[in-house]
Amino acid sequence: MRLSQLFGKSIRAVSSEVKSKGLEYLIRGGFIRESSAGRFYLLPLGMRVQDKICRVIEEEMNSAGAQKMSAPILHPREHWEETSRTASVSFELMQVKDRSGRSFVLGGTAEEMMVALVRQFSLSAKDLPFCIYQFSTKFRDELRARGGMLRAREFLMKDGYSFHASKEDFEAYYQQMSECYFRIFNRLDLPVRSVAADNGYMGGDYCHEFVVDHPLGESRYLVSEDGSYCAHEDIATFIREHMNSSEQELPITVAHAARGLSVQAGVEHYGQPAWRQIKSIVYVTDTEEAVLVSIRGDLEMNELKLQRLLGCNQLRLAGEDEIRALGSFVGFVSPLKLKIRRVGDLSLTSVRNFCTGADEWHKDTLNVNYGRDFVVDILADIALAKAGDVTVDSKSKLAERRGIEVGNIFQLGTWYSERMKGAEFMGADGRKHPYYMGCYGIGVGRTLSTVAELYSDEKGLRWPEASTPFSFHLIAIGNDAKVLDYADKMYQGMMSAGRTVLFDDRDVSAGVKFSDADLLGIAQRIVVSKRLVEQNRVELYSRFHERKEEIERGSFVS
Amino acid sequence: MRLSQLFGKSIRAVSSEVKSKGLEYLIRGGFIRESSAGRFYLLPLGMRVQDKICRVIEEEMNSAGAQKMSAPILHPREHWEETSRTASVSFELMQVKDRSGRSFVLGGTAEEMMVALVRQFSLSAKDLPFCIYQFSTKFRDELRARGGMLRAREFLMKDGYSFHASKEDFEAYYQQMSECYFRIFNRLDLPVRSVAADNGYMGGDYCHEFVVDHPLGESRYLVSEDGSYCAHEDIATFIREHMNSSEQELPITVAHAARGLSVQAGVEHYGQPAWRQIKSIVYVTDTEEAVLVSIRGDLEMNELKLQRLLGCNQLRLAGEDEIRALGSFVGFVSPLKLKIRRVGDLSLTSVRNFCTGADEWHKDTLNVNYGRDFVVDILADIALAKAGDVTVDSKSKLAERRGIEVGNIFQLGTWYSERMKGAEFMGADGRKHPYYMGCYGIGVGRTLSTVAELYSDEKGLRWPEASTPFSFHLIAIGNDAKVLDYADKMYQGMMSAGRTVLFDDRDVSAGVKFSDADLLGIAQRIVVSKRLVEQNRVELYSRFHERKEEIERGSFVS
Repeated sequence: MRLSQLFGKSIRAVSSEVKSKGLEYLIRGGFIRESSAGRFYLLPLGMRVQDKICRVIEEEMNSAGAQKMSAPILHPREHWEETSRTASVSFELMQVKDRSGRSFVLGGTAEEMMVALVRQFSLSAKDLPFCIYQFSTKFRDELRARGGMLRAREFLMKDGYSFHASKEDFEAYYQQMSECYFRIFNRLDLPVRSVAADNGYMGGDYCHEFVVDHPLGESRYLVSEDGSYCAHEDIATFIREHMNSSEQELPITVAHAARGLSVQAGVEHYGQPAWRQIKSIVYVTDTEEAVLVSIRGDLEMNELKLQRLLGCNQLRLAGEDEIRALGSFVGFVSPLKLKIRRVGDLSLTSVRNFCTGADEWHKDTLNVNYGRDFVVDILADIALAKAGDVTVDSKSKLAERRGIEVGNIFQLGTWYSERMKGAEFMGADGRKHPYYMGCYGIGVGRTLSTVAELYSDEKGLRWPEASTPFSFHLIAIGNDAKVLDYADKMYQGMMSAGRTVLFDDRDVSAGVKFSDADLLGIAQRIVVSKRLVEQNRVELYSRFHERKEEIERGSFVS
Repeated sequence: MRLSQLFGKSIRAVSSEVKSKGLEYLIRGGFIRESSAGRFYLLPLGMRVQDKICRVIEEEMNSAGAQKMSAPILHPREHWEETSRTASVSFELMQVKDRSGRSFVLGGTAEEMMVALVRQFSLSAKDLPFCIYQFSTKFRDELRARGGMLRAREFLMKDGYSFHASKEDFEAYYQQMSECYFRIFNRLDLPVRSVAADNGYMGGDYCHEFVVDHPLGESRYLVSEDGSYCAHEDIATFIREHMNSSEQELPITVAHAARGLSVQAGVEHYGQPAWRQIKSIVYVTDTEEAVLVSIRGDLEMNELKLQRLLGCNQLRLAGEDEIRALGSFVGFVSPLKLKIRRVGDLSLTSVRNFCTGADEWHKDTLNVNYGRDFVVDILADIALAKAGDVTVDSKSKLAERRGIEVGNIFQLGTWYSERMKGAEFMGADGRKHPYYMGCYGIGVGRTLSTVAELYSDEKGLRWPEASTPFSFHLIAIGNDAKVLDYADKMYQGMMSAGRTVLFDDRDVSAGVKFSDADLLGIAQRIVVSKRLVEQNRVELYSRFHERKEEIERGSFVS
C-alpha cells in the first residue's frame, strides 16, 4: 500500500477525553475513529490489525476442533425469556421490535441462540462433544463507555460454545480451551494470566478470566506471592487468622456508647482496633427478604459472594425506617437479637470478646463471643480479600493486581439445557439428558486495544509481528530520483514476493516520515538513503524490538 | 474434517414452505437454519462457503484499490436525518434507543455513516479518489421474508463507497468497479448481466444491477434481442410507434357511453383496440398535489418513472370523492378539462382520433387529438416496457427476463455530500467542494443462495470449486479394515498437504454415504474401494462437472 493512497491520515492531536497512550495513538495514527460514544469505526489500518488477530484466534480455535459458524445478531426475545436472563444480565440489553411487533434482543452474548439452534437437531451421545464458535458484533448498553475499545458498547467478539455428554468430558475440554487461549495470547504477544472468577449472569459454577496486567484494567484480582493462587476479587478467599486467641472470654455487658455510626467511630470511641468490632448490616434481597449480615470490623463485605450465597441477583441496604421496624437502629445493629435470617463471615470466629451494637440507640454490647452468645444461620466466606491477607493454604500472602480481561472461559453446566425445552441428547441408556455446556469468549477490539496499550512508547505504537498492520514500513530519505526509484522498485519487488508493505511515497520531509512511522508503529522499518543505495544496502529497524541493522537489499525481494 | 464430528447433520425433509431446490438442499444438507423468519444461522458448512465467497470479493476489491474497514452497526439516527432518508428508504428502518434515550438506526445501507466518517478528515484534492468497503450485517424489515437468503431481513453485505474530486474521475472508477464485479461473479461461476436500473432511495442518477437470470429472481428486466440494450423494467424505454398515421384527424364529438370503467370495458363497448383509448388517472403526490396523468390505453403506467418525474417519494390514486371534487368521474376522466397539472406519456402523440372520457358520467369524447384538442404540461416516458416493444434505436425488439440481483453499483453524485454538512474537500482552486460519490454492494448470503439455486440437480447441490465448502469429499466403501485404513491415511496425507477434505468416517452404508455426498455437493469426490486399493488407485468424481475417472492415489498427497 502506498501511504499517499491510504484512507485515514495521521493527525496531531486528540480530544482531551482520551486518557491513555494506546488509544491516543490508535486515533492519531488513523487506526480507529469513534462514531457515537463506545462505538467505533475501524479504518483500513485498524482493520488490518483486527483481521490478523481474528486469523490467529480462528486458527487456534480450529486446531482445538472448534467449528466456525454464525448466528443472527437479532435474537428472538422469547429465547432469553426461557432462561429469564432478560432480568439477570448485568449490562443493559438493547431491544428492538420489528414492523409486526415481534421483540428482539441485540445479542450481548449468545448462549440462548446457540441452544435454540442445537436443539433443532436430534442428538445422540455419539454426536457429542462439539464446539461451535462465531465472530460477531455484540451490544452492551454500558452506563459509561470509557477507555476506547477497552469497554465499548458495540464490539466484535469471538464467542464459542461447547456441548458435552458428561461433566468429565466437559472438564477435559475446558482444560483444552484454556491451553488454546494461552496459545492464542502467546502468539499475540500478550502475557496473560488465567484468573478464577465468578460466573455472574452466565449461569454455571466457575470460570476463568484471561487477564493482562495493566493499570487501565477493570479486573482487580489477588495473586499469592508464591504464585500458586490467583483469583478475581469477586471470589478470592483467604484465612481468617485468630486475632487474640490468648484472651479469656469475658462476661457479656451492655454499655452506654455515645459514638458515631461507623466502624472508624467505634475505633475512636474505644481506642481499640477495628477487628475488635462486629459490623452488622441489614440487606434486602430481590424477594424483599431482610437478612442480617455480620462481619469482623476490619473486613469489607463482598456483596457478590453474599448474593451467590443467598441465590439472588440483587441486594440493597435496608433503610433507616426498615431497620427501626425490625427493632434496631442504624449503627447499633447486632447479631444478637433481630428475628430475621442471619449470615456471618468466617471471621466471626477469629476474635474473642467482640464489641457490637445493642440494638438500642447509643448502646453497645461488649465481650460478645461467637458460639457462646450468638450463632448465625449461615457462617460462610463473604469477605473481600485484600493485599496482605494469608492464602488458604497458610503458605503465602496475597498481593493485589489490576488487569484487562481479554478473554474468558465459563463452565455453564446444565444451566441452559435445563431451562430451555428440548435441549437434550439421547444417552447410551436410551434416555434423554440435558447436555453439559461451556462457553468461551475473546473480545477482539479489546485485545487489539490491549496490544496498543502494552506496546507503545512516548513516540507511538510498537506492533508485534502477529498484529502489525503491515510487516514493513518502507521509507526513502531525500528527493534524489535514484533513491526514490530504488525504493519504488523495492516496494514492487516486495509486494510481488507476497510481503505486506506500507510505502511512504509522500512528498514530505524525512522528519515527518520518521515521526509518522514511529506513530504507526509497524513492526519493521526499511530505510533507503543515498549512501545506502550506493552500497546496495538498506537499513532495517525493528520498531518492536528497537534494533537497527544494515543489510543487503536482496534479502527482501528474494 | 471428519464427517462424524461435523456439527449440522443432513436431514431428510424440510418444511413445505420451502419452495426452491437450492434452499431445500441448503437446509437438508446442514448449511443453514432459519432463526426467526428471514434471519439465518450459518452452520459450519455454510460458513465455509460464505468465507470462500468473501475471500473472492475481498481479493478483487483490494485489486481494484479499495480498502477494507468497518463501521458500527448502530447508526446515530441524526446522520440519517441529515439526508432525510429516514423518510425515503423503501424498506422499513429498524430503530432502537439506548438507555439514555439516544436513537439509532440498524444499518440497512451505510452512505450516511461513511460520509460522517470521511468528513472528519480535512481532505484536499490530492487525497482523492479513494474507495472504502466493509463486510457487515445489514437489516431490512421486509414485509415478507421469502426465498430463504434470497430476501432476508438480516444479511451479510459487502458495501463499498468511493469518493472523487470530479464526475470524470468517478465515471472512470465506476467502469473499473463494473469490471471488478464481473471478475468477482465470473470467479464464483455466476453468469451475470449488468442491468441499468433506477437509483430509488439511494439518491444519485443511475445504477446497474448485476443479475443472474433465474425464475426465482425479483428483478424483471428487458433486453433487446440484438443484445445491445439491457435495462430494469423500472427504467426500460422503448419507441411509441405510430398506430394509425394514415388516418385523418376527425372532428371532436361527445357521445353517450353506458360502458364499464376499465379500458377493457371500452374495448368491448366500441369494438376497437385498446390503443384507441386514452387512460387518464388522477394521482396524489406526497405533498397532496393532485396530478392528472394520461397514457395510451394499451400501455401500463410505470409509477416509478412517474415518481421520479414528479420528484416525489410516494404516489397514491385519488379517491372517488376527490375526483368528483375536481369535476370529473372515475372511469370518465379526460386530459381535456381538469384544471390541475397534467402529465402525459409519449404515446399520446402516436394515435389519431383517440377516444377518452368527457368528465361526465357515461359520456365519452371521440376523435381527440394531441396538439389540436389538448396538450399536457409534461410529455415524457412514463410507460412500462414489455416484451415485443421496439428499442429506442428502432433496430430490435425487447424480450423480458427475470433474475436475481446479486450486486449493484450506484452513481450517487453529490447527493449525500451536498446534504451532509462538511462533506467536502479543498479543491486545487482553493475552494471547498462536495465530493462526488459512488457505492457498490454485493449481498453475500444472496450470492451463496444463488450459487445453490443455479448449481443443483435432482439429487442435491453441485458447488463450483470457488465456493465449495471443502475441495474433496472422501468416501471409503465397505467395512474392510484395509480399505478404511487406506482412506484414513489418505485423509491425513491430504490434510498435511493443505487440501480441504471432508472425510466420511461414519459407520453407515455406501448408499447413505453416496446420497449424502450428492446432497452436500462438494466439488470433487474421491472414492476408495477394495478393488481400487489393490491397484493403489482411487476414483475421482467431479460433482460439479459430473465427470468420473480413476487415478493414481499419489496425485493427492504429493
